[in-house]
Amino acid sequence: MVFHMGTTSRDLSPIFEPKCVAMIGASNNPSKYGWIIPANILANGYKGKLFLINPTEEKIWGLKVYRSLKEVPEQVDLVVISRPAESVPQHLEECVENHVRSAIVISGGFKETGKEGEKREQEIVRIARGGGMLLVGPNTMGVYSASVSLSALMPPILPKPGEVSLISQSGNIGTNLLAFGSEQGIGFSKFVSSGNEADISTLEYLEYFGQDSTSKVILMYVEGMREGRKFVDLVKRVKEKKPVIVYKSAVSKAGSRAAKSHCGALAGSTRIFEAAIKQSGAIRASTINGMLDLAVGFLYLPLPKGKRVGIVTWGGGYGVVASDSCELAGLEVPPLPPETVQKIDQLLPSYWSRGNPVDLVGFINREVQPKVIEEVAKLNDIDAIIASGFILGRSVGSSIFKLLRKDEENTGEIWSDRATKTVAEEVRNLIEKYRKPIVAVTLTTDPGTLKKVLECGVPAYSTLETAAEVLAKMYQYKESLNRVEKRE
Amino acid sequence: MVFHMGTTSRDLSPIFEPKCVAMIGASNNPSKYGWIIPANILANGYKGKLFLINPTEEKIWGLKVYRSLKEVPEQVDLVVISRPAESVPQHLEECVENHVRSAIVISGGFKETGKEGEKREQEIVRIARGGGMLLVGPNTMGVYSASVSLSALMPPILPKPGEVSLISQSGNIGTNLLAFGSEQGIGFSKFVSSGNEADISTLEYLEYFGQDSTSKVILMYVEGMREGRKFVDLVKRVKEKKPVIVYKSAVSKAGSRAAKSHCGALAGSTRIFEAAIKQSGAIRASTINGMLDLAVGFLYLPLPKGKRVGIVTWGGGYGVVASDSCELAGLEVPPLPPETVQKIDQLLPSYWSRGNPVDLVGFINREVQPKVIEEVAKLNDIDAIIASGFILGRSVGSSIFKLLRKDEENTGEIWSDRATKTVAEEVRNLIEKYRKPIVAVTLTTDPGTLKKVLECGVPAYSTLETAAEVLAKMYQYKESLNRVEKRE
Repeated sequence: MVFHMGTTSRDLSPIFEPKCVAMIGASNNPSKYGWIIPANILANGYKGKLFLINPTEEKIWGLKVYRSLKEVPEQVDLVVISRPAESVPQHLEECVENHVRSAIVISGGFKETGKEGEKREQEIVRIARGGGMLLVGPNTMGVYSASVSLSALMPPILPKPGEVSLISQSGNIGTNLLAFGSEQGIGFSKFVSSGNEADISTLEYLEYFGQDSTSKVILMYVEGMREGRKFVDLVKRVKEKKPVIVYKSAVSKAGSRAAKSHCGALAGSTRIFEAAIKQSGAIRASTINGMLDLAVGFLYLPLPKGKRVGIVTWGGGYGVVASDSCELAGLEVPPLPPETVQKIDQLLPSYWSRGNPVDLVGFINREVQPKVIEEVAKLNDIDAIIASGFILGRSVGSSIFKLLRKDEENTGEIWSDRATKTVAEEVRNLIEKYRKPIVAVTLTTDPGTLKKVLECGVPAYSTLETAAEVLAKMYQYKESLNRVEKRE
Repeated sequence: MVFHMGTTSRDLSPIFEPKCVAMIGASNNPSKYGWIIPANILANGYKGKLFLINPTEEKIWGLKVYRSLKEVPEQVDLVVISRPAESVPQHLEECVENHVRSAIVISGGFKETGKEGEKREQEIVRIARGGGMLLVGPNTMGVYSASVSLSALMPPILPKPGEVSLISQSGNIGTNLLAFGSEQGIGFSKFVSSGNEADISTLEYLEYFGQDSTSKVILMYVEGMREGRKFVDLVKRVKEKKPVIVYKSAVSKAGSRAAKSHCGALAGSTRIFEAAIKQSGAIRASTINGMLDLAVGFLYLPLPKGKRVGIVTWGGGYGVVASDSCELAGLEVPPLPPETVQKIDQLLPSYWSRGNPVDLVGFINREVQPKVIEEVAKLNDIDAIIASGFILGRSVGSSIFKLLRKDEENTGEIWSDRATKTVAEEVRNLIEKYRKPIVAVTLTTDPGTLKKVLECGVPAYSTLETAAEVLAKMYQYKESLNRVEKRE
């Protein structure tokens, strides 16, 4: 099977690997993005050179300010523009004159606002393309790139560097995913808020991220797309190397109406695009945050070889809901062989559930927990494990003991963060040893708690439904790869 | 319409309002619940007297230990027993002899483990009922009651006092909801882990909570129930005073199998019970945590008079997903009248969305945000509002500025916690002024952030889907009340 490179393929490295960035519209006014964007670039420790441009200011964020692009003494790879829409064409002309290689147009007031804006948008595309310059946006919230620590973003956030890349047709949703994912311990390689996509389309970013070795998982927030056929071909190619996870919005009438005023011309037929997602082998997330849950699964876990799940819980209720969730997601919860039941009999009190789900019946012994998981993980008939309610300690536990003036030393081996870490590390070893996915589940949604476990290499989810959905979709992805292998 | 009191109705106040509690099986061994339960009772500041019983210890948690119940010098209302199953009948005999009014049997090893356990369970019921003693469990994780600050629970948690009451057929799920809800700022009035329900059933607790004036919303985690008819009659009666929110598990084959080994005999036919939930007018939560989301909505907001939602977002993507979520939940997103568009024209930059959803297009002005919400809230054609992406400030914002050594004073009015609080308080005023529900949505799931906004009286959810589901179910509840009013 031979794939042809799309004709859209350009080198986007001036945007994602710039050695020198300039900002037109830098400001000392805290209610302007010209004030926040340089703050983001500085606070995130950009590795290249930053030049701020404003004809009337002397200093911004302690940096010398230049009157115009012409005065900047270096070759500028990327310009960020946050100025009223009317003045953007003139600034882009300036960029072309100064041989700038790419520009991010933050400003709104283009195609999304009607006829006049659309004309202006055509004009800026003409200027950029005429000058051989790449154009992100307009109406974008910017880009992030871990390799050069560049955070040219509108909201004040500190993304964590890592291996997830994200293309978003909504700046707010995209930057929130970046912020919220980072709080949970998920790291990002590259991010772009694609804005109106006047020059560079979602597909062109996808092609670039697909070839980028630091992007291990690609996430896409998509409102609409006209080029369904191209999307299918491209995803088919990219997904052989890395999973492509898509959240599609504008799936209702009200949503489509809203999307029109958001990024009007992008919206194609939802039904056609939904069929395209399916045909392409992209993984479809059912919620926005679900993209992050899936990313974590793919990034940290081996793919399940089948759909048979072992469930180990601290409390029978979790076992019931986990079983429900698995079956509803298309997974199976097979019985345990008698030998395994006998082995676990040696580990747990006599009144344990003696089947799958394995209920630890509230037995407090942090050493026994990973041993029970191992008995299940080693079974040939089990492809994945959901471990619920005990890998994550509850930090409030220690507050109780603090109130009673018992320090961690006394309560340590059971309720402390250290105990959580030890269990999580042993579970990570089991993942490696048996090459099977094991996920942790707790009811808490505290990103800090989820992060602690993820740092040990174990994905942690706040709901059982999420865990089952992630495993089911990882299995479907694995199957889609097998099909290609078999065909060839 | 006349309702008859169920014959099951007993006064459960010895369990939920005890003046004196004793614990049989108190221990100095940190891996025993006899160690943790007294810690919980002490740390949560129980208002009554606590007596610890153990024949061989002198002191536990600094308290004098009694050798037997006989030695306790006070009338004991409630005994908590955490001892091996075999010895529980003997301890209950002791309770009866000493005129104890109620007992919580924490121990497992009863009906859930087979024939022998079932016999033992029949025996303890016989002893308790013969002695006129109420029996919680066995195989329970305990109870919480805010009125006397009693936290007789197995896991170490600090529940927040408040007005939500919870009956759970899973101890772990119940106590986790308590812990996680409290982290989010949700307060609880009464909680019971109903265990095997050998003596007191879910329905008897429901009846008691239904009559309890401090329980404003009732949550139920249900695996199974045989008395569907009785449930329908009881909920029909209770829901006229307060909403009853149910999460039903064991809805799949695998889940039902798991439920059998968890609390075997409780499980009736799921399909019959599902019909009963619908018929009763109980509100069905679609996820476990969803029970808390619904509780918050009912507790803090007026009921929506209709299903027409105004959406105000900071970023168009949120508007698209919010519109999708509303339509899929059965709500409507009507257009804005031209006068309102003109009024908002005065408040926002010219490129705002000029319709519903109202997109604040990233405009940073914390004073304008509530003004825009008010223009939508005052419309007769709008029954509820979803406000997304701006009521909750992002705490990471301030870390950026800290890195750059700008203190909150300089950035204060825009990105600080103080600004978030001001906006949330103004939104709360709008809820009161227009008697319409307004909910905040952010992508973060950090319980601390959600709590900050809830403390101002504004429910905050981490997803748009949740917000739409809560409003839709509040509307359905309102409709079910109207139907009763019309009928009578």
